[in-house]
Amino acid sequence: MTDDEERLARAALSRLTEPGDLSMTPLVHEFGGAVMHRRLLEERGLPRIFASIAARLPSVDAAKELDRAARLGIRFVIPTDVEWPSQLDDLAGAEPLQNRGGVPIGLWVKGPVRLDGLAGSIAVVGSRAATTYGDRIAGDIGAVAAGAGAPVVSGAAFGIDQAAHRGALAGGGPTVAVLACGVDRIYPKAAEVLLTHLAEVGAVVSEAPLGCSPHRIRFLARNRLIAALTCGTVIVEAAVRSGALNTANWADRLNRPVMGVPGPVTSAPSGGVHQLIRKGAATLVTNGQEVLEMVGSAGEHLVDDPRGPVRSRDHLPVKEQQVLDAVPVSTPAPADSIARVAGLAIAEVGSMLGRLEGAGLVERHDHGWRLAELART
Amino acid sequence: MTDDEERLARAALSRLTEPGDLSMTPLVHEFGGAVMHRRLLEERGLPRIFASIAARLPSVDAAKELDRAARLGIRFVIPTDVEWPSQLDDLAGAEPLQNRGGVPIGLWVKGPVRLDGLAGSIAVVGSRAATTYGDRIAGDIGAVAAGAGAPVVSGAAFGIDQAAHRGALAGGGPTVAVLACGVDRIYPKAAEVLLTHLAEVGAVVSEAPLGCSPHRIRFLARNRLIAALTCGTVIVEAAVRSGALNTANWADRLNRPVMGVPGPVTSAPSGGVHQLIRKGAATLVTNGQEVLEMVGSAGEHLVDDPRGPVRSRDHLPVKEQQVLDAVPVSTPAPADSIARVAGLAIAEVGSMLGRLEGAGLVERHDHGWRLAELART
Repeated sequence: MTDDEERLARAALSRLTEPGDLSMTPLVHEFGGAVMHRRLLEERGLPRIFASIAARLPSVDAAKELDRAARLGIRFVIPTDVEWPSQLDDLAGAEPLQNRGGVPIGLWVKGPVRLDGLAGSIAVVGSRAATTYGDRIAGDIGAVAAGAGAPVVSGAAFGIDQAAHRGALAGGGPTVAVLACGVDRIYPKAAEVLLTHLAEVGAVVSEAPLGCSPHRIRFLARNRLIAALTCGTVIVEAAVRSGALNTANWADRLNRPVMGVPGPVTSAPSGGVHQLIRKGAATLVTNGQEVLEMVGSAGEHLVDDPRGPVRSRDHLPVKEQQVLDAVPVSTPAPADSIARVAGLAIAEVGSMLGRLEGAGLVERHDHGWRLAELART
Repeated sequence: MTDDEERLARAALSRLTEPGDLSMTPLVHEFGGAVMHRRLLEERGLPRIFASIAARLPSVDAAKELDRAARLGIRFVIPTDVEWPSQLDDLAGAEPLQNRGGVPIGLWVKGPVRLDGLAGSIAVVGSRAATTYGDRIAGDIGAVAAGAGAPVVSGAAFGIDQAAHRGALAGGGPTVAVLACGVDRIYPKAAEVLLTHLAEVGAVVSEAPLGCSPHRIRFLARNRLIAALTCGTVIVEAAVRSGALNTANWADRLNRPVMGVPGPVTSAPSGGVHQLIRKGAATLVTNGQEVLEMVGSAGEHLVDDPRGPVRSRDHLPVKEQQVLDAVPVSTPAPADSIARVAGLAIAEVGSMLGRLEGAGLVERHDHGWRLAELART
């Protein structure tokens, strides 16, 4: 078997196999494209599903397909290529979902970003019917990830996907769109400018050969690639029955972290995300730094928890806090009145006021004590 | 020891002990109020902390205090009373937090709601600086809980607390405010109408005796009571350094469920809640039903997960879905064109179109096939 023979065989099989088809993809992964191609042509009495493919195999001109792709600037990446993203091989061991699964036979790719550079990439996906809020957060996460050198992978759909790609572009980092149709197709049509740009500076990828249209089950197969290519999936907005949840499910099957961005509980596009977090199927994240922390190797990108300001009073013993609480802000009060308010003995309070004065927290005046500037916050 | 003696002793100790004080409350819980009262008066060489209380004990007229309270419609509930909420005894075994802890010496109560009816109650707490969104959700949760018969306990503070009380009142259920000051005090002043109403139809409760002002550490002690009285705590909005997180911490120490309502990640008042959920210290909830499910006994209040509509096509085998995806919506197409689009053999597609027609999903026309009404959603 030559490398060319394998590529031609896989290109032909790619033309005749539905993305993520469970009868073909595992066999091609196990035996290779050339072997499967030969067996389909030579063997008799094949099961019906293979007979149907075998019958159409002679009519496929794989060399012509690869040639046409090359003229359009599209390459066909297969597992024997250096560019093959080896994390996709995890799909061989993952349980199918909605009758789709397996390692793709090959990937049709347009654009300068190499697929073998996506090991540390992050999927940012979500609802087509996104809100302004969701778009903004997806864009922010895309920008922070890309800015930190993590490529952003998404599906080029309206809403969250496009916002994530745009954020990554704004963050100056690579971004890759995985499509359910052929990479020569523009879908959705209104994403033409974005897809053209991605093909120039990022990459547009599909398991489906040229010319294929984006059918619903191809989206399901496509979602598994988004999850498998990346080392973590963030769902920004997803209603209860959203395709983004299918991607989350795939990420979970592949043991990649699933993250969800919450939103108002009154917002339907956040409903599916809340459900994931609630069930423990996704970790709540609120920004790109937290995403990087989740997917980064231990210690890398570690985020400090946001904290309130530490106030000087917080370090005091409880009794002194109690006294401090009883000291007036403006009009000075005598120690016995402070003791009464604090519910403590006057003798104790006297010495504590002295210590608090030393710490710069209270001021001594003619007629008693009041808080110093430092203790007023 | 008579019941009166115990009540008088505890009333006196309540006057001289800071709420949640760690030196006194455990001893009073262990030995009882009358015994501790006697020991403080009789024993010599007491540790300084007790000596200070002992020195002031003779000046307290507990009978007069109880009498004054009674005239104001305020009762002093102690552990030997039938009304004592026994769930508070869990505080004896809970680790202290910020130097506060222990079972309270007694509770000063104003209002018709009995404390022994709070076993199934729910705490709804949160930020003073609440948003319109937070207020609305807290009110909704309060109303759903109260409507289902679960009393709502909160702290009467501005924002979330007051919204929760108001929601519970609107839901027609009992609601109880636990204060950091004496129950005869109105704090915050602007809550006068609400607190007066709660004292008439619900209950206003405090560990601090009459006249006490609401110092900061009394809020910390108060928060433990809100967590301990209820069988679950919901945080609606809480910034990163909010007192509501202290209540959540107490609920966790007491093995009561902690629940958090998410909000926009751009909203600071949701920051502390998101942090809790993210760390796994709170379960995300989006409405009152989910709260009831969390705190209810197994099987009670069980919530159906929200689901998208199930569509007729979802039950089809994958290949038939594939064919269906290839059938045009309006202009009929011949079977061979559908087969080409679907990437399937024409023979297969023909029989599948027949089955889909039988299922009412496609229509046969003169020049081919198109989707039936049923399959267009």
